[in-house]
Amino acid sequence: MNDRFEISLLLDYYMELLTEKQQDIMNMYYNDDFSLAEIAEINNTSRQAIHDLIKRCDKTLISYEEKLKLLEKSNIRKTKKNEIVEKLTNEYMLSKELVDDIDEMLEEIINS
Amino acid sequence: MNDRFEISLLLDYYMELLTEKQQDIMNMYYNDDFSLAEIAEINNTSRQAIHDLIKRCDKTLISYEEKLKLLEKSNIRKTKKNEIVEKLTNEYMLSKELVDDIDEMLEEIINS
Repeated sequence: MNDRFEISLLLDYYMELLTEKQQDIMNMYYNDDFSLAEIAEINNTSRQAIHDLIKRCDKTLISYEEKLKLLEKSNIRKTKKNEIVEKLTNEYMLSKELVDDIDEMLEEIINS
Repeated sequence: MNDRFEISLLLDYYMELLTEKQQDIMNMYYNDDFSLAEIAEINNTSRQAIHDLIKRCDKTLISYEEKLKLLEKSNIRKTKKNEIVEKLTNEYMLSKELVDDIDEMLEEIINS
């Protein structure tokens, strides 16, 4: 399996591009922490079949990220936001209150 | 065909999810303004085949937008950016120079 944390982040961005069944199983494995054996039992199939499905979905998610780079772009936005906040504080010398307000508004932008 | 302008916007977001051949033909049609007949001749196929491929790709792009909403989210970010700029000008009474600087930094965020 690939890095659990990275895959669970990619799931946030590309979940909707998986089939409903794939979404269910990926959610059980990465978000609800079910074991392969548990997921296999719930889905009335083998541990190996679930393992293969998850591996295939991992690859699909990684391939979407290689093409659309949504996670990478989101990280760039966060970095830029922090740079702006720092600049407003240290270079433009705005009050902490005002910077906090702007920070909150920027947070809304990068989360939308 | 669907709305040309909307499809050309969606192409900006989802182009990478099309095959190379689809990308070429969609580019010729939506960005380089070739006619169906011209694209058919270049690709050594029928006008009808090109028409069908474009219609299929239109549907694919619309379906990606329904799932990922990247265009919608980008528009939300632009609106939020304009709201921030207006608020900094009219509510926080920052100088035009400072607001312009912040505006420029925000532009970088929403374009990344």
